[in-house]
Amino acid sequence: MTARLLFAEELPIGRTLDLGRYAVSEQEILEFSRQWDPQAFHLDPKASAPGFFGGIVASGLHTLSVFQRLAVLGAYRHWDIVAGRTIREVQFLRPVRPGAVLQGFLTVQLVENTRPDRALVTKIGQLADQESVTMTVEVEAYVRRRAAT
Amino acid sequence: MTARLLFAEELPIGRTLDLGRYAVSEQEILEFSRQWDPQAFHLDPKASAPGFFGGIVASGLHTLSVFQRLAVLGAYRHWDIVAGRTIREVQFLRPVRPGAVLQGFLTVQLVENTRPDRALVTKIGQLADQESVTMTVEVEAYVRRRAAT
Repeated sequence: MTARLLFAEELPIGRTLDLGRYAVSEQEILEFSRQWDPQAFHLDPKASAPGFFGGIVASGLHTLSVFQRLAVLGAYRHWDIVAGRTIREVQFLRPVRPGAVLQGFLTVQLVENTRPDRALVTKIGQLADQESVTMTVEVEAYVRRRAAT
Repeated sequence: MTARLLFAEELPIGRTLDLGRYAVSEQEILEFSRQWDPQAFHLDPKASAPGFFGGIVASGLHTLSVFQRLAVLGAYRHWDIVAGRTIREVQFLRPVRPGAVLQGFLTVQLVENTRPDRALVTKIGQLADQESVTMTVEVEAYVRRRAAT
């Protein structure tokens, strides 16, 4: 990695980056749910046992936050990001249960030069556990262009 | 509100529910960002001062989590929800700064009877501060049908 941040022109279009792994503990599922998504199937092991999932599962927002953390540490902190704009099509394909280890992937799909000083960058993100993909997401953010400097 | 949970058939299609308000403190913006979205414009007041936003702003995921909390407490906890499926088109229209007071709104747009035991419910959510709308989101979740009982 270079010491300075990457401009939009320098992002690796079409290449999938491995963002590394994150282990989701029961404690963290409970803490996140209590604060942000207090539904029984996220925070009550007893009430959720006979339910659809047969136990607690992580809030979709928690899962999405895990992806964001991995994406910032594994990619975005090296990019000259101006601001996020859209989160699109977050698909929760399979439940994330206590003890899941999630691996993140990020692919830059499109760089559109919307303004002289910045580009709109479309990225596809995925989280997978040891079996298969648990979540997919499409994100748009503005990234500075070299022309801006 | 009834004591039992509402079935898909009972959801108020087309009516916009007021979910109440939530105050976003600087402390909470910093805590959320440190854990889930450690980008400078979310967690470093000094580094972000000369930047695009002129100071720190809440992570989009934090803003979305505030909406979810308001939606659960103001609506979802009264519904017989099976599981969330998709978060679609989260638009971050204006920055959320420390001290912002966000008001949530939820509209049930569509109830599709996808299976005998549950329906796919599409909802439109909004957060607004005292000036105007800061975030919009479309969410899909499965809700039990009366037929299931």
